Amino acid sequence: MPCAIGIDIGGTFLKAGLVTASGELQHFLQLPTEAEQGPDSVIARLAEAVEALSARAPEPVVGIGIGCAGHVDAAGQRVSYPPNFPGWTVVPLVDRLRERLLFAGPILLDNDANAAARGEAAFGAGRGLKHFLLITLGTGVGGAVVLDGKVWRGLSGGAGEFGHTTIHYRGPRCNCGARGCIEAYVGEAYLKRQVRPLLRRHPESALFPLLASRRKIRIHDLLEAARSGDALAQQILTRAGRRLGYALVNVVHLLDIRTVLIGGGASHAGEWILEPVREALLERLMPPFREGIELRLAALGNRAGVLGAAQLVFEQTG
Amino acid sequence: MPCAIGIDIGGTFLKAGLVTASGELQHFLQLPTEAEQGPDSVIARLAEAVEALSARAPEPVVGIGIGCAGHVDAAGQRVSYPPNFPGWTVVPLVDRLRERLLFAGPILLDNDANAAARGEAAFGAGRGLKHFLLITLGTGVGGAVVLDGKVWRGLSGGAGEFGHTTIHYRGPRCNCGARGCIEAYVGEAYLKRQVRPLLRRHPESALFPLLASRRKIRIHDLLEAARSGDALAQQILTRAGRRLGYALVNVVHLLDIRTVLIGGGASHAGEWILEPVREALLERLMPPFREGIELRLAALGNRAGVLGAAQLVFEQTG
Repeated sequence: MPCAIGIDIGGTFLKAGLVTASGELQHFLQLPTEAEQGPDSVIARLAEAVEALSARAPEPVVGIGIGCAGHVDAAGQRVSYPPNFPGWTVVPLVDRLRERLLFAGPILLDNDANAAARGEAAFGAGRGLKHFLLITLGTGVGGAVVLDGKVWRGLSGGAGEFGHTTIHYRGPRCNCGARGCIEAYVGEAYLKRQVRPLLRRHPESALFPLLASRRKIRIHDLLEAARSGDALAQQILTRAGRRLGYALVNVVHLLDIRTVLIGGGASHAGEWILEPVREALLERLMPPFREGIELRLAALGNRAGVLGAAQLVFEQTG
Repeated sequence: MPCAIGIDIGGTFLKAGLVTASGELQHFLQLPTEAEQGPDSVIARLAEAVEALSARAPEPVVGIGIGCAGHVDAAGQRVSYPPNFPGWTVVPLVDRLRERLLFAGPILLDNDANAAARGEAAFGAGRGLKHFLLITLGTGVGGAVVLDGKVWRGLSGGAGEFGHTTIHYRGPRCNCGARGCIEAYVGEAYLKRQVRPLLRRHPESALFPLLASRRKIRIHDLLEAARSGDALAQQILTRAGRRLGYALVNVVHLLDIRTVLIGGGASHAGEWILEPVREALLERLMPPFREGIELRLAALGNRAGVLGAAQLVFEQTG
């Protein structure tokens, strides 16, 4: 069976895998990205991973697919200013990788959230769905729009920036420069700023010590506290879920799509946020849009990007 | 040359025309809708208009296209709860019209904003554009999304509800039941409520007498006052434009489309609002999305719906 190599370049980890056309992940590697060492260093380690996986492939790989954080151009050649990649500007990732490889086949590049959506559509929770929105909850909030079974990339390949849709035009400042983006409310990078005023008023909460700590607050912290009955943590997760719901109303009204897949590192908070998301949706959607609203947790976990990057190859090589 | 009949059913006027496949409007009728008399009465007058136009066609018409306010189902058969149509619930418009006509050809139905977008795409300001958003400014705020040259209708035909995307989740109550919809800020039905607090503080403004008047404030009033130098009117239009810009940022970030057509009865305020819309967009869009942003006034005026409804026929009959 034909195999492709799928690569997922995130802010924290670089993942690569040998994937069959039916979505079987035969080998999987995970390394720290160490983006701060610059694109050359990352691409050199990427090339090593590709060589290692190729050597284990039972037959020649048909192509290499890459999902990378940041804005990928429409031609799928360059990545621009990936967030949390210090010092990266515009990197011609495909050319740079090809220079280091003895590989003449296709090397294809897309945004990491688009890759994850393609993976979920082909092998995961999006199988059989015509249209869906994938959102990824983590340090930031990513998104990908799938219409008629295909990732919608838009004019320049940048579509899907759900995290930077606003729910309050005078809301908190987002790292993108705008205000009130949903990422600025529920992204882990913003959680401490968001919950600090609440924490000050709740010394009884299990979360209170985090106020004085220098480390950032993660969804995982909220989840642990909520599970052990901490009222404040439950309240914070509920509020985050409702706000996510308000942002989703905009997408449903604009595109009339009814299924939302929730993935990313923070999606394990699903048990606490899915219900408030649903409540906010049903409260705010116009009646014809309420029917068939479905929230699903993404199914492929941290392998979605690798599987989807490989699927990018299978889609193009037929 | 083949002809179709295009019909546009709005809250105020019912328009119908005989249209050639090249977009020439050969005959045009406009009647008051009188929706409050109920669907039967409207459909009876619609049937008369169709007969009158058919009689003047040089050859048999190939089909009848209808754009109607409200939610049109995916199959293009029924319209549900059109706003400003008192007493209308779910109306099987296509079947009801067919019963009254001796016409065996196709009768096709879509939402009115979708019809206008189809008209602009085929014969107006959207010609040659791959992707665009049409927004219509009037009593409410309508919208239609054109992707790859086609109106995107979504799962149940309801896509394009730009007017009911929120820019402030705790903002003013909208007639749809949600909060902070862009329609609740800039729709004419909401203007008086929006500007009342400002008017009270500006007795020097030419708009001040409207505060005590029972009639609603129209964009046209603001426009006239702004043109004669009224600072408050200029400020209100600028503010409306900026808010429209914030709502458009969400669409650009989500879909990566860069062209917005502005139509509807209030689009003649373009000279005053286009600049603040553009400013808000360039201020809030992430850098890769700023390039190529274009705002255009729609070109077909109040004939867009009729032309687009006819185009619905030409698209389907080949």
